[in-house]
Amino acid sequence: MKQSVIKAGIVGGTGYTGVELLRLLAAHPQVELSVITSRSEAGVAVADMFPNLRGHVSLKFSAPDPKALAGCDVVFFATPNGTAMTLVPELLHSKVRVIDLAADFRLKSAQEWQQWYGLPHACPELLKEAVYGLPELNRAAIKSAHLIANPGCYPTSVTLGLLPLIEQGLVDEQHLIADAKSGVSGAGRKAEIPLMLGEAGENFKAYAVPGHRHLPEISQSLEQTAGKKVALTFVPHLLPMVRGIHATLYARLKDTGADLQALYETRYAQEPFVDVLPAGAHPETKSVRGANVCRIAVHRPQGGDTVVVLAVIDNLVKGAAGQAVQNMNIMFGLAEAAGLGSIALLP
Amino acid sequence: MKQSVIKAGIVGGTGYTGVELLRLLAAHPQVELSVITSRSEAGVAVADMFPNLRGHVSLKFSAPDPKALAGCDVVFFATPNGTAMTLVPELLHSKVRVIDLAADFRLKSAQEWQQWYGLPHACPELLKEAVYGLPELNRAAIKSAHLIANPGCYPTSVTLGLLPLIEQGLVDEQHLIADAKSGVSGAGRKAEIPLMLGEAGENFKAYAVPGHRHLPEISQSLEQTAGKKVALTFVPHLLPMVRGIHATLYARLKDTGADLQALYETRYAQEPFVDVLPAGAHPETKSVRGANVCRIAVHRPQGGDTVVVLAVIDNLVKGAAGQAVQNMNIMFGLAEAAGLGSIALLP
Amino acid sequence: MKQSVIKAGIVGGTGYTGVELLRLLAAHPQVELSVITSRSEAGVAVADMFPNLRGHVSLKFSAPDPKALAGCDVVFFATPNGTAMTLVPELLHSKVRVIDLAADFRLKSAQEWQQWYGLPHACPELLKEAVYGLPELNRAAIKSAHLIANPGCYPTSVTLGLLPLIEQGLVDEQHLIADAKSGVSGAGRKAEIPLMLGEAGENFKAYAVPGHRHLPEISQSLEQTAGKKVALTFVPHLLPMVRGIHATLYARLKDTGADLQALYETRYAQEPFVDVLPAGAHPETKSVRGANVCRIAVHRPQGGDTVVVLAVIDNLVKGAAGQAVQNMNIMFGLAEAAGLGSIALLP
Amino acid sequence: MKQSVIKAGIVGGTGYTGVELLRLLAAHPQVELSVITSRSEAGVAVADMFPNLRGHVSLKFSAPDPKALAGCDVVFFATPNGTAMTLVPELLHSKVRVIDLAADFRLKSAQEWQQWYGLPHACPELLKEAVYGLPELNRAAIKSAHLIANPGCYPTSVTLGLLPLIEQGLVDEQHLIADAKSGVSGAGRKAEIPLMLGEAGENFKAYAVPGHRHLPEISQSLEQTAGKKVALTFVPHLLPMVRGIHATLYARLKDTGADLQALYETRYAQEPFVDVLPAGAHPETKSVRGANVCRIAVHRPQGGDTVVVLAVIDNLVKGAAGQAVQNMNIMFGLAEAAGLGSIALLP
Repeated sequence: MKQSVIKAGIVGGTGYTGVELLRLLAAHPQVELSVITSRSEAGVAVADMFPNLRGHVSLKFSAPDPKALAGCDVVFFATPNGTAMTLVPELLHSKVRVIDLAADFRLKSAQEWQQWYGLPHACPELLKEAVYGLPELNRAAIKSAHLIANPGCYPTSVTLGLLPLIEQGLVDEQHLIADAKSGVSGAGRKAEIPLMLGEAGENFKAYAVPGHRHLPEISQSLEQTAGKKVALTFVPHLLPMVRGIHATLYARLKDTGADLQALYETRYAQEPFVDVLPAGAHPETKSVRGANVCRIAVHRPQGGDTVVVLAVIDNLVKGAAGQAVQNMNIMFGLAEAAGLGSIALLP
Repeated sequence: MKQSVIKAGIVGGTGYTGVELLRLLAAHPQVELSVITSRSEAGVAVADMFPNLRGHVSLKFSAPDPKALAGCDVVFFATPNGTAMTLVPELLHSKVRVIDLAADFRLKSAQEWQQWYGLPHACPELLKEAVYGLPELNRAAIKSAHLIANPGCYPTSVTLGLLPLIEQGLVDEQHLIADAKSGVSGAGRKAEIPLMLGEAGENFKAYAVPGHRHLPEISQSLEQTAGKKVALTFVPHLLPMVRGIHATLYARLKDTGADLQALYETRYAQEPFVDVLPAGAHPETKSVRGANVCRIAVHRPQGGDTVVVLAVIDNLVKGAAGQAVQNMNIMFGLAEAAGLGSIALLP
Repeated sequence: MKQSVIKAGIVGGTGYTGVELLRLLAAHPQVELSVITSRSEAGVAVADMFPNLRGHVSLKFSAPDPKALAGCDVVFFATPNGTAMTLVPELLHSKVRVIDLAADFRLKSAQEWQQWYGLPHACPELLKEAVYGLPELNRAAIKSAHLIANPGCYPTSVTLGLLPLIEQGLVDEQHLIADAKSGVSGAGRKAEIPLMLGEAGENFKAYAVPGHRHLPEISQSLEQTAGKKVALTFVPHLLPMVRGIHATLYARLKDTGADLQALYETRYAQEPFVDVLPAGAHPETKSVRGANVCRIAVHRPQGGDTVVVLAVIDNLVKGAAGQAVQNMNIMFGLAEAAGLGSIALLP
Repeated sequence: MKQSVIKAGIVGGTGYTGVELLRLLAAHPQVELSVITSRSEAGVAVADMFPNLRGHVSLKFSAPDPKALAGCDVVFFATPNGTAMTLVPELLHSKVRVIDLAADFRLKSAQEWQQWYGLPHACPELLKEAVYGLPELNRAAIKSAHLIANPGCYPTSVTLGLLPLIEQGLVDEQHLIADAKSGVSGAGRKAEIPLMLGEAGENFKAYAVPGHRHLPEISQSLEQTAGKKVALTFVPHLLPMVRGIHATLYARLKDTGADLQALYETRYAQEPFVDVLPAGAHPETKSVRGANVCRIAVHRPQGGDTVVVLAVIDNLVKGAAGQAVQNMNIMFGLAEAAGLGSIALLP
């Protein structure tokens, strides 16, 4: 019985976040998939490109059409960076709510955005209005938001992992370390040499150590929380697998007396999609594959002053499409977990 | 709103078919997970062994207890071969319906069973009563069955792939070839050297070419269909991946005039879980990962007299736990697709 | 002590057969790497593109230069199909011996070549002169050849697997089946969506079932051997791994009395790079990874009239660069195994 | 032409370090494989267990026999921890030189050894005499050593990565962080559930965060170098692949003015098996697969006071068997690179 059906549109949708969004929305009890646009694939059945959707999604890609999108209640952007910002103002004007899964609205500073993304921002006036869609940080603001900047995959795992420590001021914010590892789907569905199985399979490497675009996004959230500048060393790595992010986080404790296990359990006790593991545990990415959940464990090895936090998510779910649906649910007053109940696929 | 809740028990359940059954039953709208037994893990929370179930299944493994099982409407056996046959007679006597995911009741001949499984059958009198649970072949009998022999993973893919040809008598039944490839989860959750990532990763090989236990099971179904003896060469291979079976089937056409595409489309038109792809297609295992579906394509290369059928399933779903749930749905008069709607995880 | 050093050039060399050729030639005791050309990478150090070569190869890619190539004793083409045929005539005229790792000279019929490769052949007069470089079939001709058509990866495994049966006329040549599986490196170092880890990882599928370019090449060798037309059904599949081909070959025996194990052992007894396994064995691709060897096992399941041959190679070594070096050794009168002694990397 | 042939024995050798040692020694120009022992596999041909060795190694495993071992010039132990220490004293007495690839002689303190390995040390008096076989740290001592403690795989990568910084006193030694990732072969050839492809494939997790046995070994080397206590947080992770370690190392610079690139290049300029990459590079594990080399890059992200060092090795080569051969070469006055020239297998 579908009550209060929400008409959803997707712009883009030929990438991995797109197909994942389709998987989730097709199974959502209160959503009607209304339109999905792709200039290059117009006329192609979505299920011809993504055969897992055969029998579940009968939509075809259509050429971008402002009118069709204006008829939606919510439009998701699953486009490359720099696309949403050219279309969002008009949609907002038409009272459509927007959730951007790309990076266009994640940074508050247009200048910083330009520095990291290499082009001027097309609607800097919206950056303030946009709400950074990490429910565990901004749930209240999401409820009334019209424009959601859906967080990046790395930032979701790193921020959720560090948040309790930063909120309580327990660690030296000037020397935070995030050693993060991602499956290749985090880079999108792009035909690039380093993402080929022949290159990325049976291989492991760090990349973008001098500077990765997710760094300012993480810093912004942590600084908002800390109320001061933080310094984070962020080192992403490419895993020889498809889905999953594991963030290993290091910080120096100002005070080794705190009960870190209790801190994390308390902080996330009411969160439906953050699971704090028992003391001593090691979360594995496979335990969250396909599910909208972040599992976290906290350690203090050898009783020293270095805290180690382990956080895992599925980069395409809690790190992208799942979180986008969670944001939609909050925005439209639905049960926050609607359509997000599926259990991770293991093995 | 759960109507007519079915109380389900699981015997075994520490293996891969067990955890997959738990994943599916936990999400089934009309099932209540009542008991799960494991002698070795009694007292352990299921979610401690399979962390994907955290927050979804609160059951603990309990020591096998006939009374608790007798209180169930249906009991699934996810045990090693040879276990179910020692417990099933008593359960049937208690009016519990039984679905055995192991091989105990798959062969009609006790003698043949002993030959392939190496021990005498404990209740040969039940072999006739047991219904081989391939709905596409035996749906009517499943409806009224008390004991289901859930098909093996290879047999599901091979039988569905060959069925239309055999039913119509279109091919030489004396020279059928099934070249089948399976992910390692098909071998179960067993700590054996050949299943280690160090051995099976970045590796591919055939195994059991002289004779595999799934051969008599497939032959039995095909012979039942053909009404005569068939000769099948069955060569299984181990894929360097976790989930998925791809069967490549070869047969010699007696008559090259038949419209094979139409034959397959017609045969499976009403089947909710068999998807015949358009002519020229190549199904991929990832398109069925986590989903209860068999996708099939049929080819006749170079217009010759050899037909090539490609069939893919997820060995743990349509090849095991999903098919078991499908059988349960049929037995209890539920919608056949209840609890089986999840979309394959891609990428 | 390098005797009679051979100056070798490589045209192309930015792909996987190129880097593998470099790995082998750099370690060859009688070869001096003289020039490697790539229009797109001119000026780039080879080791910057392929970091495994750091410390072993100091050459830079240079723009194609006929003079430099004409100064070589042998030139290897590791180029896309259709390139070698435009350059080879001039090189042969300069008395340079040529080994083409692409398909330009593999088919004897220019018409058939055009049909499968989609463009007219540039030097059809050389097709007869070219020697198909499968030493186990054509060693004598290779010795005196000036132009070698190095076999494709699939054809090497399929032809070596079927050769003894065809030579002895033991099987029905009108119904041969080759079910072949290849790691992704067989498709080359190309940025294409289906070769991405996100697509090909944890996935398995057949492709090109209606017709693959390696089919006419295999048929040609088998027909040359059989002295008559053969009909082969060839189904290639893509494995979720990097290196290795496994060919599973099926044929119907005209006579089930032959001692197949003895046949294979005798046929290959003197071959340095074909290893016939003991009866009952199953070769695995990992046992040949990085090594110039084809391992073969022969089975007759259930004593029927279907013979099953299992053959494995490393597609980049015995299926490409290693075989090219083997051909070079034969052409120049070196020890056939020179530079080819390395042991497969296991695990 | 084999000069001064060294007779080598291997105790153990049924594991991954064993087969890798066999691969390297079989190709070593000055080594004669004399004996390989395994109680459980006595009588089995080595090549039957490890088919990559077919045609290269004709030895059979033999039951452990002190006399046969006493006839060797050098004996390698590729045994589980705790075995070598029971046999080494007698071998040393027989003037056999010993290289232990297990952990028995890696720690100088018998008490600390017992604490981490859970049993009393059988010959604590040898701990001082044993030389820790990291050539880049202890080459002079290795030359005259009779007993080599071959370093662990993680320690090799972490120690080589941090050594230049520690030697120069450039970083805060009280807050070192080593985030290390290893392929599954690092855990050995053991049939354990977490090492199965079904578990470790498409998965990533940290393990042993509270304390891993390689921690005291690393600390010991760093403390020897620093001349004082150090505090290291060491977090190992399991990669879904077979071979390769990537250590990502973090330290706080006392002085941000040092030229780190020059420091590393100078420190390792004469080292045949350490390769410092150009500034800005990211080493990948595949570039060292099968080769005895450690590739290192050094970064200082955003010009901050945190130095990030990336170090990769093949855990079975520079992290085990290759380093053992390197040590043997040094001990016997051979060319240090003898038998270690093979190029990494890429792709």
